[in-house]
Amino acid sequence: MNIVVWNEFRHEKENPVVSDIYPEGIHGALASFLEEDGHHVTTATLDEEEHGLTDEVLNKTDVMVWWGHKAHEEVSEEIAEKVKQRVLDGMGLVVLHSGHFSKVFKKLMGTSCDLKWREADEKERMWVVDPTHPITEGLGEYIEIEKEEMYGEHFDIPTPDELLLISWFEGGEVFRSGATFKRGRGNIFYFRPGHETYPTYYHKDVQKVIQNGVKWVYNNGTPKHVYGNAQPLEAITSK
Amino acid sequence: MNIVVWNEFRHEKENPVVSDIYPEGIHGALASFLEEDGHHVTTATLDEEEHGLTDEVLNKTDVMVWWGHKAHEEVSEEIAEKVKQRVLDGMGLVVLHSGHFSKVFKKLMGTSCDLKWREADEKERMWVVDPTHPITEGLGEYIEIEKEEMYGEHFDIPTPDELLLISWFEGGEVFRSGATFKRGRGNIFYFRPGHETYPTYYHKDVQKVIQNGVKWVYNNGTPKHVYGNAQPLEAITSK
Amino acid sequence: MNIVVWNEFRHEKENPVVSDIYPEGIHGALASFLEEDGHHVTTATLDEEEHGLTDEVLNKTDVMVWWGHKAHEEVSEEIAEKVKQRVLDGMGLVVLHSGHFSKVFKKLMGTSCDLKWREADEKERMWVVDPTHPITEGLGEYIEIEKEEMYGEHFDIPTPDELLLISWFEGGEVFRSGATFKRGRGNIFYFRPGHETYPTYYHKDVQKVIQNGVKWVYNNGTPKHVYGNAQPLEAITSK
Amino acid sequence: MNIVVWNEFRHEKENPVVSDIYPEGIHGALASFLEEDGHHVTTATLDEEEHGLTDEVLNKTDVMVWWGHKAHEEVSEEIAEKVKQRVLDGMGLVVLHSGHFSKVFKKLMGTSCDLKWREADEKERMWVVDPTHPITEGLGEYIEIEKEEMYGEHFDIPTPDELLLISWFEGGEVFRSGATFKRGRGNIFYFRPGHETYPTYYHKDVQKVIQNGVKWVYNNGTPKHVYGNAQPLEAITSK
Repeated sequence: MNIVVWNEFRHEKENPVVSDIYPEGIHGALASFLEEDGHHVTTATLDEEEHGLTDEVLNKTDVMVWWGHKAHEEVSEEIAEKVKQRVLDGMGLVVLHSGHFSKVFKKLMGTSCDLKWREADEKERMWVVDPTHPITEGLGEYIEIEKEEMYGEHFDIPTPDELLLISWFEGGEVFRSGATFKRGRGNIFYFRPGHETYPTYYHKDVQKVIQNGVKWVYNNGTPKHVYGNAQPLEAITSK
Repeated sequence: MNIVVWNEFRHEKENPVVSDIYPEGIHGALASFLEEDGHHVTTATLDEEEHGLTDEVLNKTDVMVWWGHKAHEEVSEEIAEKVKQRVLDGMGLVVLHSGHFSKVFKKLMGTSCDLKWREADEKERMWVVDPTHPITEGLGEYIEIEKEEMYGEHFDIPTPDELLLISWFEGGEVFRSGATFKRGRGNIFYFRPGHETYPTYYHKDVQKVIQNGVKWVYNNGTPKHVYGNAQPLEAITSK
Repeated sequence: MNIVVWNEFRHEKENPVVSDIYPEGIHGALASFLEEDGHHVTTATLDEEEHGLTDEVLNKTDVMVWWGHKAHEEVSEEIAEKVKQRVLDGMGLVVLHSGHFSKVFKKLMGTSCDLKWREADEKERMWVVDPTHPITEGLGEYIEIEKEEMYGEHFDIPTPDELLLISWFEGGEVFRSGATFKRGRGNIFYFRPGHETYPTYYHKDVQKVIQNGVKWVYNNGTPKHVYGNAQPLEAITSK
Repeated sequence: MNIVVWNEFRHEKENPVVSDIYPEGIHGALASFLEEDGHHVTTATLDEEEHGLTDEVLNKTDVMVWWGHKAHEEVSEEIAEKVKQRVLDGMGLVVLHSGHFSKVFKKLMGTSCDLKWREADEKERMWVVDPTHPITEGLGEYIEIEKEEMYGEHFDIPTPDELLLISWFEGGEVFRSGATFKRGRGNIFYFRPGHETYPTYYHKDVQKVIQNGVKWVYNNGTPKHVYGNAQPLEAITSK
């Protein structure tokens, strides 16, 4: 499986708090534990040419993991459209945390993808509500994260195909934190945690969910659908 | 309830077969039986200024019914975006037949919305698979249409929130012909039948479904959601 | 609309804390605000003959509201089966709080309907995740209940058709607190709050949800489905 | 994976048409192509002691495949309850054809599971509507079966978690022929074809779907959920 971890990679350059936590970038941390799981992983970032997402790269990518936050608008329309199209053509997509507001995710959802948020060093507890799903395999009843950014309902997404995880936040909110969607031939998994100022992607359970997620969104076998004008399969006698 | 019936209104001007069936345009036929149901109905068409969808019109529209076919690309990006935004803000949307390929529907679905099709004067039988839904109220077990265009699976839409009707076609295909979706505060109902060369919109059961559909997508009560930065509702003690 | 509010009516007789809060029984409190909404409401309780659910009563009931807790096993198999059958035949059902463990609900769900629970006088905040649904109409962003029993995930129900409300509990859990299901011609709404030692059913928002709920589950129009051996609608030529 | 193929095994003993097609019984034919797929497969039939489903057998079964038709009522309540309980505890279940009316399936669904049917040697074409699902992997756009019994809508099941296949019948009906459900820790797949008087289970695509189905329902990793009284995870300060 060829995985591309895409990261905006700006906070790490501008905020020493972030670069201290993720010296190789958030993409580096994500790539590391996905490689450990036996996949071929490369990374791409916003400031590379074509954001690192040339046609050549896109065409051989089986699964993309997307992290972005403060510079969604700097992702070009053209590249965002290409990534969306690759998803419709079968590339799996794992959207992390603030990627909820990325052009790619919003185009695929058709909604604003808006939500409530707060940075207050508060506790998050993600409860598993679909314990038999492949993405929650290996987890206990919940994942506890000592300090995270809060995301709260209402989360403006279409009704998910499957709801896997619901977060409890110390400050009083809840959030649909793990959800799957299908678009075209592509499988999509949205997973909430991962604010840049916390070491969330070193959390073993968070890594487990992302490792499970890339496997679940991966789709290597679906042939291109046949659309357009079609000859009848049966005689039409009513004419 | 303020309903706007939007119609491309091109076939009726170019093809006497169509204008013989729909002398007042497809929009005229649709408006007629919606008015009979007690609603305030106006129409808008592609060749009007701003396609008849000025901000003033859009802002007072509760429900829009959309029929388009051969000129989807002539609908301006700007107007399509505005209509999409009004749906997210709570305007109900009923998308008819070839409207599956409209810019508005594709933006809201996030997929290609592609399908198989054939014009062969064949019989369609739409089976009710959700008989207790308000949109199928008053129907029998199925709706039979003597001659229609065929639309066949695979239909490239996201998994519908609710699947109401499945079509059987004489030539051997099936199709998910009645389906609901929610996007933002807007309710959406897609309903398959209505090829321009057949008198489908005079069929009493087809009219019944569209009458039920505009009522179901109508949403007058939902306040604007609160998004963005939020103060905690509980003390955060872990800091 | 003929509503029957069914209540176990045991706590009220045995525990003065409960009878102080609900001097007319929990069924009395529920009936009261449903009557205010213009419905014809009667009540039935466990210790009445046939639990108050004779064939005559059942046959004219459009919507049943069910509250039970400590004596689920005392509901006879026969009556539970009859109530289930009436739901399949089109009677709406609103299941409240500890009714999750009633025979009727378990038979309709097919699962254990088990969950976590705790009585600790803690705060509950129910967040609306489907703000455009008729059942959440008129609510704000959440319902706050000062003190309630906790119900926590995993809640062992089938995936709901629609998830409307998610509870946050002070003690750290979340719960799918408002959910709809369809079984046969019957609509079902499960709504979590209502522990007998708290005045929850006097809470205006809780009343609003139950008032909306009975309207949503009500189904007066669906004819009996046709099942069994069926003659072909088209000629079978392959024979 | 330990698979038990359960078959009523009555038609084969009474009708030479059936025994000519399935000389080793329907269970023998099913077991054969599941063994070829590398699983450990045993069979059990109605007339064996405890219908072949002793506690010892049940406890080591990972996936059960169920075929029954004319003798559903002869399956004992006790055994049906045990099988249902094993599904809730994590055993996968594939229900074939007339198994829709089995006690086990009806208990898990909570509905009548009724439908229309006809034996008229007619053509069935099952269209794939979820082409990226693991159960439809390896199929083309549809599966064509030359002659089969017709099953028609309305099919009285709860809304499936996932709808994979829709059948077209020559006589004019449609049917939701492939559908998944979750109940407790158990995954369930209902698959329509397989009338006893046709050689349907020798059809390569039908075999493929059943082979995919047993893999999809298999769940070896989910620990027993924790239910019942729970201590708070956070301090409750409102007391």
